[in-house]
Amino acid sequence: MEHIRTTKVEQVKLLDRFSTSNKSLTGTLYLTATHLLFIDSSQRETWILHHHIAAVEKLPLTTSGCPLVIQCKNFRIVHFVVPRERDCHDIYNSLLQLSRTAKYEELYAFSYNPKQNESEQVKGWQLIDLAEEYKRMGVPNANWQLSDANRDYKAAICRCSQPLSGFSARCLEDEHMLQAISKANPSNRYMYVMDTRPKLNAMANRAAGKGYENEDNYSNIRFQFVGIENIHVMRSSLQKLLEVTGTKGLSVNDFLSGLESSGWLRHIKAVLDAAVFLVKAIAVESASVLVHCSDGWDRTSQVCSLGALLLDSYYRTIKGFMVLIEKDWISFGHKFSDRCSQLDGDPKEISPVFTQFLESVWNLTEQFPQAFEYNEAFLLQIHEHVHSCQFGNFIGNCQKEREELKLKEKTYSLWPFLLGEQKKYRNPLYNPDFSPELTLLEPNTVSFNFKFWRNMYHQFDRSMHPRQSVFNLVMNMSEQNKQLEEDIKELEAKIKQRNGQPDAVPVKEHQQPAHPAPTAPKTPPCFKKEQPLIPVNDAVRTIEGSNTADNRYSEFVAEFSKAEPAVVSLEYGVARMTC
Amino acid sequence: MEHIRTTKVEQVKLLDRFSTSNKSLTGTLYLTATHLLFIDSSQRETWILHHHIAAVEKLPLTTSGCPLVIQCKNFRIVHFVVPRERDCHDIYNSLLQLSRTAKYEELYAFSYNPKQNESEQVKGWQLIDLAEEYKRMGVPNANWQLSDANRDYKAAICRCSQPLSGFSARCLEDEHMLQAISKANPSNRYMYVMDTRPKLNAMANRAAGKGYENEDNYSNIRFQFVGIENIHVMRSSLQKLLEVTGTKGLSVNDFLSGLESSGWLRHIKAVLDAAVFLVKAIAVESASVLVHCSDGWDRTSQVCSLGALLLDSYYRTIKGFMVLIEKDWISFGHKFSDRCSQLDGDPKEISPVFTQFLESVWNLTEQFPQAFEYNEAFLLQIHEHVHSCQFGNFIGNCQKEREELKLKEKTYSLWPFLLGEQKKYRNPLYNPDFSPELTLLEPNTVSFNFKFWRNMYHQFDRSMHPRQSVFNLVMNMSEQNKQLEEDIKELEAKIKQRNGQPDAVPVKEHQQPAHPAPTAPKTPPCFKKEQPLIPVNDAVRTIEGSNTADNRYSEFVAEFSKAEPAVVSLEYGVARMTC
Repeated sequence: MEHIRTTKVEQVKLLDRFSTSNKSLTGTLYLTATHLLFIDSSQRETWILHHHIAAVEKLPLTTSGCPLVIQCKNFRIVHFVVPRERDCHDIYNSLLQLSRTAKYEELYAFSYNPKQNESEQVKGWQLIDLAEEYKRMGVPNANWQLSDANRDYKAAICRCSQPLSGFSARCLEDEHMLQAISKANPSNRYMYVMDTRPKLNAMANRAAGKGYENEDNYSNIRFQFVGIENIHVMRSSLQKLLEVTGTKGLSVNDFLSGLESSGWLRHIKAVLDAAVFLVKAIAVESASVLVHCSDGWDRTSQVCSLGALLLDSYYRTIKGFMVLIEKDWISFGHKFSDRCSQLDGDPKEISPVFTQFLESVWNLTEQFPQAFEYNEAFLLQIHEHVHSCQFGNFIGNCQKEREELKLKEKTYSLWPFLLGEQKKYRNPLYNPDFSPELTLLEPNTVSFNFKFWRNMYHQFDRSMHPRQSVFNLVMNMSEQNKQLEEDIKELEAKIKQRNGQPDAVPVKEHQQPAHPAPTAPKTPPCFKKEQPLIPVNDAVRTIEGSNTADNRYSEFVAEFSKAEPAVVSLEYGVARMTC
Repeated sequence: MEHIRTTKVEQVKLLDRFSTSNKSLTGTLYLTATHLLFIDSSQRETWILHHHIAAVEKLPLTTSGCPLVIQCKNFRIVHFVVPRERDCHDIYNSLLQLSRTAKYEELYAFSYNPKQNESEQVKGWQLIDLAEEYKRMGVPNANWQLSDANRDYKAAICRCSQPLSGFSARCLEDEHMLQAISKANPSNRYMYVMDTRPKLNAMANRAAGKGYENEDNYSNIRFQFVGIENIHVMRSSLQKLLEVTGTKGLSVNDFLSGLESSGWLRHIKAVLDAAVFLVKAIAVESASVLVHCSDGWDRTSQVCSLGALLLDSYYRTIKGFMVLIEKDWISFGHKFSDRCSQLDGDPKEISPVFTQFLESVWNLTEQFPQAFEYNEAFLLQIHEHVHSCQFGNFIGNCQKEREELKLKEKTYSLWPFLLGEQKKYRNPLYNPDFSPELTLLEPNTVSFNFKFWRNMYHQFDRSMHPRQSVFNLVMNMSEQNKQLEEDIKELEAKIKQRNGQPDAVPVKEHQQPAHPAPTAPKTPPCFKKEQPLIPVNDAVRTIEGSNTADNRYSEFVAEFSKAEPAVVSLEYGVARMTC
């Protein structure tokens, strides 16, 4: 609380940023240790978590007061006008301090107390069990073994994506490792190596002595660049997008040209195209694929997790999506802290990589309205909490950091909370059996299919939304349906009871409920084919990581024909393969 | 049949215009007197009505044959490859002839025979009765009277929008007429004159001796330009849009910049903005509004009919929408024949004015998913038949022409057919009581709300659509709901019957069905306010027409204080006013 000089300001105006008539609400602004709160004259409350604040700006004084504009990481933008400049200044300074934190322990998650006892807290963290998930995936097995060589997060890490120094050098260990991965898949003689970078970037790296693989030294391997831009391009693209979405009174043409010049939808398409390439190699050619880029926690996470989502319907359930995020993002060391700017740090590390993943998933839910158990609200809520730092799941940059922070003791897991309110996140159109042969989703990534995600970028601009949400309407219809089915059961029971004997009245055969409760399949569908048991999900994964060993999960290694010292390089990373 | 030289060609390929792998179907092409028919090897049929063809193109010979590209008015584009050039040439020439007709009597409607007897045909035409509709609207009344002075379509027509010659002249009759309209509305002392043209165009017309009203000569009248572009700009905009939607392998950025530079969505927004202005003047200020442009059958039809749709929920029902089109488009002389190129004529008269109206309505249905009884399929089907010339409704440029063609005897009306299959066109989310105070729709026309209408422009590119249509899913859910309700009734009846006495078993009280069958309100809702009975719908209408008197409906005139000769100018046109 030492940063708070003014805790309450009255007669503050909250402007509607898109109103043409400069509509505003008048009310009182409060500053608490964790939130900014505005209560308008009709007692409506607007809460803004300090950790959600991306930027605060104080504009020049006007006749009606001093404007204060707050931009949040969930794309909410609020525009206050504070009557006295001094109050505005105090709030501005407080927010600058409160929204920037130097230590993890100051994040909201460490003070958030949802009134759970210790055993509930522990149980909450146990909800998602990755060991269980790997078992479901069918590993370890004859071709892949589990290794805990990196249990202390100390091992030296060898990156397969940048093993070369200069133009001529080669890396024998890397070549052997790829051979081993290739051999672990008996159903195909060749494998793919997908480089998620644009080829130009990789060539530039090569000239700088980092490089990419020389194809001549790798037999039966097909190299493929898929052209996803780096975190800096993505950050700047989002910045441009937000400038467009934040402009008042924009003409349709300016909106479209702004959307185009931001390049945002082009990037979303590039990510999805890469996932589609991955899935086709696996599902159509039965090839193994190794996905890599320069680091292995951004583009590779996007492509592998989206690939998994297209391949395995389990990840299209509410629980399965949580598992997917835990497995492919959290445990694989996506740097949530840096990318989401949890602590005051290098602004060049910030990038909307995970947001792009959610947006890609949203695009899929729009194209396949029946294939997902969850709805848009679920994706938006996860996005909210990735940035809120209210729960421990996304805190830190890697597994090692998380263990050191003792997050499981000191904070709560988001997943049980989302499961507790899963009714809100259910897609009423979901049908797990919608088309059994379509377990594999094959999205069409033609340019016309990429839309601006209004509910993400204008989530808090209520005046911009339809008066009626289709989702709520369909939800009600679905609820009503369930109620009617129950009524029928009750009436049938009544008839049976009155008859005294159960089968006297031929009871009408009813239709199946539209949406039977989904169950996580014990074995992924493609395992049912007669072919060697190799792990199905997540297609593949980079064999790289960072130079400091900081992740431990998923230590499956392909068996080498000889146990060479190079094996060590594999024990950290993971090459996962699929049928 | 004299145009058909080749009636059947085998081994023709039908290409998928967006497939990246050059997928194609092989089959047989047939040419009938009315249709082109393609039957592929799995016996699937593709029918193309000759009158739907907007352009045929023969591309240079390739190794696989001679490509023939057919563009239809419903935005279908088919790409055939005919093995022998001579066959292709024959088909090309036949289609050129068959798709262009010099006489109305050669249109499909005159040969189309749906196996109805004469009385069914007559009854079909009587389905929409505009006299009934005007009664529903509350006219004639104390302020407006009916006149049949133009019953022979002979009267001279005076256009109120361009009454001036040069910069200085004035038109006293016009000024008196506006005074009369203004006086007919006792609830407001001023009225609006909306010029739907961009002000620049009107000024250019003025310089050319046509001009617009000099405000100084009109008291209590507020002039407002709303900036909808003319038919030539709209035609060229659609052309650009179609170039974009027809391009294969387009990047997302190229799609967005193409969409922007076509200006199409900007025009849709301009039309809707004008309707919103109109409705606000009427609903908020209780002002009368006179809408005009240079002719009175394009932009005015768009604005008045959309205004009516926003003001009066009756037009948001299936039947009501038919009435709206009959009233504001057909009977008011929208030149369907010229605009849709029914006959071989001046290509500069072609313009997608009605398509823009449907697209504006679609935008509203997206923003208010519960407010419309009809769905997108209804709009698309109407669009289909406006261009098919299969039914008589849209044939010709005006009412006079239609009567001369004896369309009611020689052709069939579209509306009974659509009503017959209305199940397909019902919006399962429709709720006539969704929000009683929202009878007036107030759309938000912020630029982010305008979307590309994929199902219009890619209706026939099936590979581009979601695998599952939300509409069909919701439709099924709604059907299932109804079935369950019936099951409950049956079971309840059973219980009553077994008990021998109706009320012995307390029967569960069920929820109301989600969507009670809509009924056309006898009186528009805003009539219920205590105010003078003046017609509610259609806000207003241009007082102009063409120089040849060719429409007769809707002859309501405001009573002049003195019966001056200028009255004649009113007897053709209509000034309709609203509460």
